[in-house]
Amino acid sequence: MGLDYRVRCCPDGLVTDRRRRIKVLDCTIRDGGICNNWEFSKDWVKRTWTALAASGVDYMEVGYRTSDGQFDPTAVGPWRFCAEDDLRGVVESSPMKVSVMLDAHRADVDLIPKADESLIDVIRIATYAHDMDKALKLLDRALENGHETFINVMAVSTLEPKAVDAFLKQLRGSGVHNVAIVDSFGALFPYHVRYLLHKYQNYLGEEIKVGVHTHNNQQQAFANSIVAIDEGADFVDATIHGVGRGAGNAPLELLLFYLDNPKYDVRPILDLVDEYATLRDDLRWGYHLPYAITGFYNIHPKSGIDRMNGADRYNCRPMYEKLARRLDEAAK
Amino acid sequence: MGLDYRVRCCPDGLVTDRRRRIKVLDCTIRDGGICNNWEFSKDWVKRTWTALAASGVDYMEVGYRTSDGQFDPTAVGPWRFCAEDDLRGVVESSPMKVSVMLDAHRADVDLIPKADESLIDVIRIATYAHDMDKALKLLDRALENGHETFINVMAVSTLEPKAVDAFLKQLRGSGVHNVAIVDSFGALFPYHVRYLLHKYQNYLGEEIKVGVHTHNNQQQAFANSIVAIDEGADFVDATIHGVGRGAGNAPLELLLFYLDNPKYDVRPILDLVDEYATLRDDLRWGYHLPYAITGFYNIHPKSGIDRMNGADRYNCRPMYEKLARRLDEAAK
Repeated sequence: MGLDYRVRCCPDGLVTDRRRRIKVLDCTIRDGGICNNWEFSKDWVKRTWTALAASGVDYMEVGYRTSDGQFDPTAVGPWRFCAEDDLRGVVESSPMKVSVMLDAHRADVDLIPKADESLIDVIRIATYAHDMDKALKLLDRALENGHETFINVMAVSTLEPKAVDAFLKQLRGSGVHNVAIVDSFGALFPYHVRYLLHKYQNYLGEEIKVGVHTHNNQQQAFANSIVAIDEGADFVDATIHGVGRGAGNAPLELLLFYLDNPKYDVRPILDLVDEYATLRDDLRWGYHLPYAITGFYNIHPKSGIDRMNGADRYNCRPMYEKLARRLDEAAK
Repeated sequence: MGLDYRVRCCPDGLVTDRRRRIKVLDCTIRDGGICNNWEFSKDWVKRTWTALAASGVDYMEVGYRTSDGQFDPTAVGPWRFCAEDDLRGVVESSPMKVSVMLDAHRADVDLIPKADESLIDVIRIATYAHDMDKALKLLDRALENGHETFINVMAVSTLEPKAVDAFLKQLRGSGVHNVAIVDSFGALFPYHVRYLLHKYQNYLGEEIKVGVHTHNNQQQAFANSIVAIDEGADFVDATIHGVGRGAGNAPLELLLFYLDNPKYDVRPILDLVDEYATLRDDLRWGYHLPYAITGFYNIHPKSGIDRMNGADRYNCRPMYEKLARRLDEAAK
């Protein structure tokens, strides 16, 4: 009865089709790794890979590739580098594609292997708009080497509309396959996502797919994913139990419930939530006031993460007042 | 810069006006009390009243009135009964109105005091659609006794559209001042709220105000509040740090950020979040898998609450599979 009612109230007849054709990219280890310096054991990542493959998820993003000198390899886990040796025995041949992310400002083109000599199927390039030239160099090499390619232009909430137009124009003729709307700061609301989705689609044309990557600072991660899906996005990011930087991402289990697509099976994901929930008690992603404040003020979550690492984490009025003053001064 | 961008992306020019005229009802003690059997100390409630009054919130719902025999007064706190003696010294004269809730099936008309002899300004009646006759009797007495009156028809997500039409017709001529869309099970998505809001407004006419009361099972509580606000609702419920039954409600602090109305001051609320966050560690409202499952299946959160009270709380696959089977059988 409940579900009948739910279906009857869908905004239009297209929605079920849209829920059926959207592709799901899991970035549990990649974005979740930001919370624990990618210190997941091989066994943990293997079990996550196995559950994701069994669930029918389309992509698993297993970490980053990173140039030498950017991170101390003794201070962070292997998923910040994703060497082929570390991937072997963890990811296997499967219809689920394996993605790694490259930060445009921390990655050299030589990090990109030839697709047929690697366990990596997909190269996803994360860039700020001002680093687009670096991103496009990485893109060219990834295309040359036979990969499916994604570009994530981060922190779109901080850009003037004309700056968004500019990078979209650059991407249109670039050969990239997929571009995501990336709400790095958790600042967007569903009407922003609706506006941006149609803008991205209009600029990028039919050939380039558009997705969405959300953060939950203001409890909008899953709501923003839903509006993207129902307005016709091509792919959506999620993580198990919402693990991810700061307030985390849209929870994969909620997404698979919502999509109600027989191609996906949520049960292997449910089996892992117990372990991820235990991790959450330690790493404290999810809704917390410091993240709400950085999201509301549309700034990088770093100051929120710093607060959350201290014992006095919820004493946030001084943080709020400082940001309010800074905004007042900027408006003068 | 961020906020400029935010404002520019509003869906239409009406939105700022709508954010400025909406009224806020805080139900921290009433709905939060469901988590701890209303065992808040007088001092705690007094500090909450003081912060809410200082923030400029329009209504504070301080608890329930309940007939004798419904609850053992030695087993639950005073805010399940809201005797005048318990309210005295806790709530004071202020522009913020004091509301109490009456469950239609647990309250006799004699619980409703004369407005001018009581600290209670507002009587809010919670009812299931099948108890509407009881609710209307309470309403008549509340109107007679000079109160502002609200009716919450609970669990609207479980009702066929024609059943919603039927209770709205009953309410139209009833004299009630405010009616809320109540998502008791956390089953609704923003497009449901949009649909229901316009239905409620169309049936109830201009004289009766329409509000929204949300739950966060599927991380939609605040998103559902936003869509109601931006589509023209008259009032919205929230609680400090989202405290409330099961997954809780929309967080008042996020709501006051969003409304960006100089009439409200979020800072006294921020001062209380530390204590409420500590309470959350104990009472565990917020996003948890058992609540996500009851929300998705559009059932009462009780089975989720029971799971959350056990040590094995996140081992939810059997719960999910049982509900899936039940739905399959119902569909036969």
